[in-house]
Amino acid sequence: MNLETLGTPAALIDRPRMQRNIARMQDHLNTLGVAFRPHVKTSKCIEVARAQAAAGARGITVSTLKEAEQFFAAGFDDILYAVGMAAGKLPAALALRRRGCALKIITDSVAQARAIADFGRAQGEVFPVLIEIDTDGHRSGIKPDEDALLAVAETLRDGGMEVAGVLTHAGSSYDLNTPEALAAMAEQERAGCVRAAERLRAAGHACLIVSVGSTPTAVAARDLRGVTEVRAGVYVFFDLVMANVGACTPDDIALSVLATVIGHQEDKGWAIIDAGWMAMSRDRGTQKQTRDYGYGQVCTLDGTPLSGYMVSAANQEHGIVARVGEPDAGIAARLPIGTRVRILPNHACATGAQFPAYQAVDADGQATEWPRFYGW
Amino acid sequence: MNLETLGTPAALIDRPRMQRNIARMQDHLNTLGVAFRPHVKTSKCIEVARAQAAAGARGITVSTLKEAEQFFAAGFDDILYAVGMAAGKLPAALALRRRGCALKIITDSVAQARAIADFGRAQGEVFPVLIEIDTDGHRSGIKPDEDALLAVAETLRDGGMEVAGVLTHAGSSYDLNTPEALAAMAEQERAGCVRAAERLRAAGHACLIVSVGSTPTAVAARDLRGVTEVRAGVYVFFDLVMANVGACTPDDIALSVLATVIGHQEDKGWAIIDAGWMAMSRDRGTQKQTRDYGYGQVCTLDGTPLSGYMVSAANQEHGIVARVGEPDAGIAARLPIGTRVRILPNHACATGAQFPAYQAVDADGQATEWPRFYGW
Repeated sequence: MNLETLGTPAALIDRPRMQRNIARMQDHLNTLGVAFRPHVKTSKCIEVARAQAAAGARGITVSTLKEAEQFFAAGFDDILYAVGMAAGKLPAALALRRRGCALKIITDSVAQARAIADFGRAQGEVFPVLIEIDTDGHRSGIKPDEDALLAVAETLRDGGMEVAGVLTHAGSSYDLNTPEALAAMAEQERAGCVRAAERLRAAGHACLIVSVGSTPTAVAARDLRGVTEVRAGVYVFFDLVMANVGACTPDDIALSVLATVIGHQEDKGWAIIDAGWMAMSRDRGTQKQTRDYGYGQVCTLDGTPLSGYMVSAANQEHGIVARVGEPDAGIAARLPIGTRVRILPNHACATGAQFPAYQAVDADGQATEWPRFYGW
Repeated sequence: MNLETLGTPAALIDRPRMQRNIARMQDHLNTLGVAFRPHVKTSKCIEVARAQAAAGARGITVSTLKEAEQFFAAGFDDILYAVGMAAGKLPAALALRRRGCALKIITDSVAQARAIADFGRAQGEVFPVLIEIDTDGHRSGIKPDEDALLAVAETLRDGGMEVAGVLTHAGSSYDLNTPEALAAMAEQERAGCVRAAERLRAAGHACLIVSVGSTPTAVAARDLRGVTEVRAGVYVFFDLVMANVGACTPDDIALSVLATVIGHQEDKGWAIIDAGWMAMSRDRGTQKQTRDYGYGQVCTLDGTPLSGYMVSAANQEHGIVARVGEPDAGIAARLPIGTRVRILPNHACATGAQFPAYQAVDADGQATEWPRFYGW
């Protein structure tokens, strides 16, 4: 199959771009002297994770236990589940560990730590637990200087669990868009997480792992002293949100949606395509950024952006392509019925999730199907 | 399984509410004397469609040929594919018809009509084709009085295809929120589609089917003279967008996401749950409506809305629950770690699509897994 014969809509991976993104991030982190543990929530695809591992990544990060199970079944055995552990999920985590998966879990509260310890002790399992640190106030975690940090660690230790390290994610980096601000956030993320590790070590905890990361801060980091590993996910594909943040250029975006023109409303300057929000996802992440791309940037079949043309609106299986500003009265001639276009997505994690498989397109234009999974 | 034992996040169907929604719509359309062809793009679930058929629905509407294939395999053989036919999809449509599926397709341009006719003639297949009518300017279709209407019909007839009818979808009804405006839009949808049918019949086309519908206009319609069938999809579950439109009340919403509290940021009044945008979808359809529910309305486990509490922000696998207005300093006591909540979604079509299966919950609280599918 190739771009002319694939059914539409289809989720295309530009394989050379993906490989370039993987190599660039790995080289960058090698230079900084830290291990890289990619977040596979972006792709949920074994082939993509294998390309990351082949380039030098060590272990993976997951956002669901289903990801842990699927990737473990494919041979990945060093897995960090980076969402606060719910007691109800402990049996599934235990089952993975009993099958030989080096699964690490996280927590940010005494209540959760106690539930982990009680379950672990009852089952005779020592869970390696990282404590989640809040370095930017955007979501979960304990602030590096809070008393709760030591209380959680003590609860884990007293319960026989392993205080394996600390973890933070400066997700507010997504709201920034200058190199200076990104570098400052990377340093804030590093310093806060290292500070938490130092407090834990001073209290007698081993705390071997110091894990930080988000794609923008990973790209922007210039000094990661004290950090042992970095996590990043969306860098493997990048997207329009990341381009607005300044973590990539549009030329780095390796994921696009292949679509077919199925109609026009010439008086409005619209072309209708068969990729609506079910294909693009409902993500409107560029809405509040410097440049709003609607539901995505329209490109020709070879991937060249059609400047000013975006998916301006979307229904479930219909996308409306329009020019920003003055409507294009010649849209039907520019994009006749049957024309195939490629749409760059706002958010690669959300767009990829809409598809049961990617079509990985080589430099010669041949497509190979790479399955991906979803659900919990 | 029940609400205490299901893994989270899970997509719950309140089965008594669903049955009530199905019965109410069917009764309403029976009273108006029109057939009902539900749009199964909302559920993509055989069990849901069987409940609709059992109540009296005749045939189904689909938004993808994959839906047509899946539902045909489950015994549904009267199927309307309600997205403008792309030439590249004709072989798949032909394959369905050859296997005995009474598949009907639609078009709104001479170019598409010619492609259908050329393909049909070459394959010896008479495709029944409905012409899509634009009755509200929101998306695709030919306006009822445009010359193009007759040109498309002639192209189909001259090419040996069957001008089976006309179809319209007044999707702009989603932007309304008063009974008067909805009733007026329902009449506009009816009148425009009937007008198009009359023009076609005057030109000698049979045009037996006059198909209209959207959930808001289906609910609001009081007189459907000249219409032969109504289509509606989201009515089966309803959602917060439909409640804002006035097509239902929050008590009618049959779909919710079961989630677990996994953390807090007490100083901000946040509870963190394990349902982020991957579970809720990125749909923010209530953002521009009268009442903005963020990523969803928080309810207790028995389905009672916690007034003022919504999912105010979402990351991939994290939802932030907060009170509207003044932060709830007592959030950790109100929703302790491990608490299970149910979240009503903005848009049932988008939220359902995030899950490989629904959990259909009976009045006695027992859950049965109903698979659903996705992709193209």
